[in-house]
Parts: sequence; structure tokens; C-alpha cells
Amino acid sequence: MNTGARSNLFQNDLVVVNMGLASFGENLRRTGTRVVQVDWRPEARGNPEMLAALDLLRGTDGELLPEITTANTEAVSRLLKARPTITGIGRAIDLIPEMKKNLVLHAGPPVSWERMCGPMRGAVIGGLIYEGLAKNPDEAASLAASGRIAFDPCHHHQSVGPMAGVITASMPVWIVENTTFQNRAYSTLNEGLGKVLRYGAYSDEVIQRLRWMERVLAPVLAEAIALHGPIDLVNLIAQALQMGDEVHNRNRAATSLLIRELAPHLVSTKAGADKVAEVLRFMHTNDHFFLNLSMAACKSALDPTLGIANSTMISTMARNGTDFGIRVSGLGNRWFTASSPKVDGLYLPGFSEADAAPDIGDSVITETAGLGGFAMAAAPAIVQFVGGNVSRALAFTRDMYEITLAENPAYRIPTLDFRGTPTGIELTRVVAEGILPVVNTGIAHREPGIGMVGAGLVRPPMACFEAALQAFSKTFRNVTNPQEKR
Amino acid sequence: MNTGARSNLFQNDLVVVNMGLASFGENLRRTGTRVVQVDWRPEARGNPEMLAALDLLRGTDGELLPEITTANTEAVSRLLKARPTITGIGRAIDLIPEMKKNLVLHAGPPVSWERMCGPMRGAVIGGLIYEGLAKNPDEAASLAASGRIAFDPCHHHQSVGPMAGVITASMPVWIVENTTFQNRAYSTLNEGLGKVLRYGAYSDEVIQRLRWMERVLAPVLAEAIALHGPIDLVNLIAQALQMGDEVHNRNRAATSLLIRELAPHLVSTKAGADKVAEVLRFMHTNDHFFLNLSMAACKSALDPTLGIANSTMISTMARNGTDFGIRVSGLGNRWFTASSPKVDGLYLPGFSEADAAPDIGDSVITETAGLGGFAMAAAPAIVQFVGGNVSRALAFTRDMYEITLAENPAYRIPTLDFRGTPTGIELTRVVAEGILPVVNTGIAHREPGIGMVGAGLVRPPMACFEAALQAFSKTFRNVTNPQEKR
Repeated sequence: MNTGARSNLFQNDLVVVNMGLASFGENLRRTGTRVVQVDWRPEARGNPEMLAALDLLRGTDGELLPEITTANTEAVSRLLKARPTITGIGRAIDLIPEMKKNLVLHAGPPVSWERMCGPMRGAVIGGLIYEGLAKNPDEAASLAASGRIAFDPCHHHQSVGPMAGVITASMPVWIVENTTFQNRAYSTLNEGLGKVLRYGAYSDEVIQRLRWMERVLAPVLAEAIALHGPIDLVNLIAQALQMGDEVHNRNRAATSLLIRELAPHLVSTKAGADKVAEVLRFMHTNDHFFLNLSMAACKSALDPTLGIANSTMISTMARNGTDFGIRVSGLGNRWFTASSPKVDGLYLPGFSEADAAPDIGDSVITETAGLGGFAMAAAPAIVQFVGGNVSRALAFTRDMYEITLAENPAYRIPTLDFRGTPTGIELTRVVAEGILPVVNTGIAHREPGIGMVGAGLVRPPMACFEAALQAFSKTFRNVTNPQEKR
Repeated sequence: MNTGARSNLFQNDLVVVNMGLASFGENLRRTGTRVVQVDWRPEARGNPEMLAALDLLRGTDGELLPEITTANTEAVSRLLKARPTITGIGRAIDLIPEMKKNLVLHAGPPVSWERMCGPMRGAVIGGLIYEGLAKNPDEAASLAASGRIAFDPCHHHQSVGPMAGVITASMPVWIVENTTFQNRAYSTLNEGLGKVLRYGAYSDEVIQRLRWMERVLAPVLAEAIALHGPIDLVNLIAQALQMGDEVHNRNRAATSLLIRELAPHLVSTKAGADKVAEVLRFMHTNDHFFLNLSMAACKSALDPTLGIANSTMISTMARNGTDFGIRVSGLGNRWFTASSPKVDGLYLPGFSEADAAPDIGDSVITETAGLGGFAMAAAPAIVQFVGGNVSRALAFTRDMYEITLAENPAYRIPTLDFRGTPTGIELTRVVAEGILPVVNTGIAHREPGIGMVGAGLVRPPMACFEAALQAFSKTFRNVTNPQEKR
């Protein structure tokens, strides 16, 4: 800088570039100074432990070490190569590994009856009544607390369940096979909205519907699927994304496509016109019917990614209404949990935030696979259901490219000029960038026995990702430098 | 300007603001001068006759005269109040006013056999064979040329037909009733894509399909509709716009919604499982199945707007493959025509622009009602079918707000933050702004007997609008100043 330029600095008007905290710039702006705000945040929110953990996983060039990058490429390529396919419907006890009459599967990471939130307790009560293990809600609650019922996450049994996610022995389940890796995922059939088991309701109406689903819906659909042959869910979901679904909280197109695909075969079953009409009417009146298939598709696509050494890709996100939990590919079955957050939502008439249970359900498996909140740009109309506005929906998807490993060439978003959905959440980026996955979700009443109260948007707690990063870097160091073990 | 400033003009670098013709600016740019191009066009492209015609319809404030504005408000409010509803299916000869065995209805403005384009001749040939009036194509062509067959536009008989638009006496037709005004519109049932009558094909396969539609499809659907009750098409189209359709060349969502709406009732008909399965399979394999309903809905919504004195709203646009024609509300049944334009399109394998017939069909009634090309922002995925890119699809809809009278509160576009579709084309704005309606469309082979070759985008000829404006201003002056009659 020469003397002339230096003197200019003080002659000209001052323009300040403010990075980070906007309030610093605001103070200057009030004095009449021109301020340009730069949206900059310190890496990992400046947390020294996280910075140290990140350092350990990076080379001198600041990039992730090659063994991590290679593992992540393998993990996300398994996810992209998945070919989830509907192959049938059967009974939980006949299909789900280690399923038993006195076992209740639930959403999210492991949780005891004592720590269960209201809607999950409600669904367990309903499940025990449905199984004939209890005659009424009081008896069911006592039985659940007695120690004679075992509880386990769906995720530990190749299964997923929306909201409370309760699966009991007699329930019919979709069989979704990832034909690329020959692994299966199971999920119950969707009951509809409002007063339903998965939202914690257990009235007679709820139990009767479950019995009808077991007696009529499942066998008729199973016969139609057998007549049709396997149904490719990648193709169906890809089409639905062109039709305004993101297949988590908007499934109208996917449900419609499934109905038209199956209708000719439903008619050809031996069930008789009355039952087939009942089945078609049930699916027609439930725009969320496809949700459980979307979830099983994502579960079957993600399971082969769990347990790849050195991979920092997130293989599971799930919540039980008490805890939000994640699992990291390279860390296998270990859950990293934190308190389940509140949902920022729109409420049904007569309900408010005070009625809401914390975030709950396995349905966040859709976001984990690059759909749901990650694909909201494909589903602008969803903002009428979960809140927000269209430009925010587009921004959500754009943000998710910052924390993901790939763009899914099968799942394309028209409004983003057919860009693939952001896929494969990478742990270090979430922590380093401070950008949390965006999730859209239904909201259950916090008390058992009531049901759905709304829908909205939520982000997982950063604490899950921070704990996972710390564990990952510790494991990584121990493996690469066993001498330095602490 | 003081002397100092004036001297600065020649000291500083020259920056030129170029308005209008870009080539003037280009010449300067080549000399190294900085040029800012302003997108400005002289009103009505500077055409003195058009400027005089526009002047006559405007007050001293430059706005349209109050009697025209009032008439346009009435016209567009009738359009927005329309409630098209499916009420049934019947035979053309039993329903369509003045339908006769030896009458062939066709798309677009009136045209003689001699002036008909190839695909329309092909469809007439197929129609005469289907009716049993001719045994083979040669006999049919001779009969058509003999004077013993009458030809008339669908539009003169409360009807519309896509592409060639041929309707003959025995064909089944949808009955769509605009319940607000109790007028009806009729349209044939959609045959699918490829080798089909409406694209000018008339092979045995085409005729057999038409007979199956008459014998199986129509009666089974008619029975299902009777069981279901009337189907509100405003609601169905509104939903489809949230699901990526614009209901002209993208009808996948609307077709899906119709199938799921009717499926439970189809099952409950007396037709038997085999026939119901055939019907469901036929609809499932034809994503354009809803098109003819969309067209009848738009026709029934627009017919009550024709013949409102002083209104400059466009009540009809239609093409017969030889001429493109429009009708203006205030001018009643009078057609203003010009040569049908070429379509800018994507071609099916093995075909090119050289194979294409000019723009053809009544389906541009969708654009006339504010759908189709006018709603392309709702259907970004359509660019894969008709060409262009997503930002252009959004721009098309935005442009159409410049030449329309209203936004339809029932038909909302998610990506435009739920803005209503641009509705009610206003004649003087088209001519003054030089912005032509944007239309997306299928493309037929120019020879009879072949079928579909592609799909694309097209604009009507400005000459139709210029002729209509001239006629309107002449009529208007004669009525308001009868002394000055020329």
C-alpha cells in the first residue's frame, strides 16, 4: 500500500465488512456507517473439542483422510445402487427376525416402558389389546410395566414404523426387498390419519380398523401383488417426485400411482367385488397410504450401508418421542442419542403446541435416504401441510447439498432443473458446517389415546452428531494409532 | 446541464442505452462501446392500423373504455364461476345437438374436405370406416369427397376434440355439465398415444380399439359414474395442478386421481371382473386419459362467455391443422383465422420436423381457459415431453399474466407461491403488448394414416388477433357512433 492509497482510506467513506455475528454490524449501521454482512460462521461453531475431532480425520490439505473418503464413496454408492421392490405382504411373526408374541417393536432408538412418551405408550396399549394380551387399557398398561413384555426398536429387526412405530406379532407387514443386496425391510400397512394406533390412539375404532386390515386389506393386497409381480419402488418414487411428493409427509401421488398399478390386479383376485371395493376405498381415502412403503424402501436401501469401517455416512436417524438417535456407518449398531426436539408445526383445529409430543417415529429414515425434507423442493405444495413457504422449501433442499455425499440420479427434482436429491448425510460436514438435516413430520398428542394433532418441521439435536463425531474420531485414532490409546 | 457536466460527457467513456432492436446495440458493441439493452417494443409492433383500432377502444387516460372493462369483468367472472362436472357418458348421436349419421365433427374452425390437412383426412377416413359407412380407406376418401358427408366444427355442437377432433355418431362421449350455467360440453374418450384416430391413424388396430371403447369402456365407465354420482372437475383439476399437471399435455396426476376416484365404483358395476380389469388397465396405461375431460371442462366453462357485447375476452381458440381460429366474446360466433403455424417440438424416434402437420386440435381450449401452456409453471416436468427447460416453463406462465384478465383462485401454482393461473385472454393486450398465448401440444404426422410424431410448443398467429381487433373496433364504432358508419 503506498502513502497515497493509505491516505485515501481515511478520506473516503468507511465501508465495513462484518463477518459472523450480525449484531456487531448492526451497531455500526446505527452510527450511519455502510456495513456489508457476510454470512460466516466459525467451523463447528468454534467448539474446540469438535475442531480437535475434525482435525484428527483430516489431512494437511484440510480434506477428509483418503480412507474415510473411500469408505464414504462405498457407503453412498451402496445407497444409490439400492433397488427396493415390493415382493409381498405377510404376518410380522412369520417374517420379522426374532419376532415373538410378547415382543413389541417400537420406533427410534431403544427405550424402556418407563421412559416412553405418551403416544408410544398409547400405541403399546393398543397393540397389546389388538394381540388379545390385554382386555382393556389399564390391563395393557400393567402388563407393559410388568416386565413380561419385551420392547425393542424396529430398526434392530429389519423394520421401520412411522410415529410410535409399534409392530406386534399378528400385524400384517409389507415385504420390501432391496434386490441389489438381497436384504429385506418390513413395515406395517398405513392406517390413515387422525385417531390411529401410530399416533397413540387405542379406542375400539382403532382396534377394529387394525383387525379389518389384518383380515381383509392385507390378504387382498397380497393376492393382488402376487398377480402383479414385484413392484419396483425406485421407479414409483421417482415418478412421485415429478408429481409433487417428497414421500414423507406428501404421498398423494405415490399412493395414486400404487392404486392405479394394483387396481386391475385387485379386481382379478378371488376376494369378491365387495372386499375389493372396500380395499380400493380405504386406499383412496388415505393419501399417506404409501408412507410405510417409502419408509421400508429407505430402510432396505440404508441397511447395507451400516458397518462400513471408516465411513462417516449416517446410516440411521430415528426417534422414539423421548430420544432422537442416529447411527453412523463406520460405528455399526451404536446409537448416539439426545432429547427428542419439539416440532415447529401447524396444528389441527382445537390443538396447539402445548398438546404436542416431542419428535417421534422412524419416518426420518426418508430424510436419511435423501427424501422427505431433503426433497422438499420437489413438493412445494407440502408447505400447506407442514408450514413454511415455497421458497423455504426450495432452500431446505439446496442446504442439504452442503451436508450430503451425492445427488441421486434416480430421484430428480423438476424445479431444480432435474437435479438429483441430496443423498447420504456426512457426519463431519453436519458438525463442521453447523447445518442440521431438515425433517418434516407429523405431530402426535403428548398423551396416550388421543392421536394426531398436527404436522411440521424439525431438526435433530446437534448433540447426536457431536457425540458421534467424538466417538468416531476416538475409534479412528485407536485403530490407526493403537499405541496412543487412552 | 452545466458546462462542466457537458464537458464530462465527452471526457468519460460512452455508455449507450439501446431500446428496441438489439442489432443497433450490437453494432456499437462491436466498436468496443458499452451498451445496455432495454427490452422495449413499440406498442402493437408500431402497426398504425392496430394503433388506430386500439385508440378507438380507449379513453383519454389510455385505459379501455368503461363499457369494455365492464363486459370483460362479466366475461371472466363467468369463466371463474364455472363448475364443470362429469355427469355421465353417452352416445354422440343421442346427446350432441344436431348430430347425424352422415355428419363428421372436427377440430378447429370450419374447413372443407378439400382444405383438410393429412391427419384430419386420416381421422375422417377412420371415422367413416368405424361408422360402417365405408369398407376401406379408398371408399371412405371417395365418400368424404362426394358431398354426401357433412363436416362441421365440434365447437359449433357444444363439443371439443383433441388433434383431428373427429366425432362421429356412434362414438361414446363424456357429458360435462357446467352446473353454474347448466350448459353442457361433450368430448370423446381418449384412445391413448401413438397410432390413434385423433392423430390421423385408421388401421384395423385403431378401429378395433374404438369399437372396444364403444362396447366395453364407455358402458362400464358410465355405470361406475352413475354409482359414484357427479364428479367435480374443478376440484380434480385443482389437485392435479398441485401434482405437476397442467392438464393439456401432462395429465398423469389427473388421470391417476380419476382412476382412484372411480376404481371402487368400477368394481361394484355389473360388468364382471374381466371387463373391469380391462377398463382399469386401459386407463392405467394412458396418462393422457384425462385430457378429453380437461378439454370438455374448459369448453363448458368458456361457452357461457361467448356473446357478451363489448367484451374483448377470447372465448375460443382452436385449430384444424389448416387454419388457427379464435372467437372473441363480444363478436359471438365469428371466427378469425390464419394459417396454422408449425410446432417447435421434440420428435419420437424416426421422425423429424419434416414429418409434422401444422398445429392442430381443439385442445388449445385449455390455454383459452388459463390451463395448459398458461399453467406450465405448475408442471415443470412437462419440459421432458414438449421441450424447453424449467425456467422457461415458469417464464411462460409469468408472461401470460400480461395478457389475461384474472388469476383463477381455484387453480393455484405451488412454485409461484400458490398464485392463481392467468385466466381470460384479453384481445387488446395481446395485440398491444405483442405477447401471444403460449400453447403446448402434440404433433401429428402430416400424412393421413400414420399417427403421433412428437410434442412441442407453439404460438397462434398474430394475424388472428389483429383481424379480430380490427373487426371489434369497427363493430364497436358502428354501435357507439352509428352516424359514422362506413
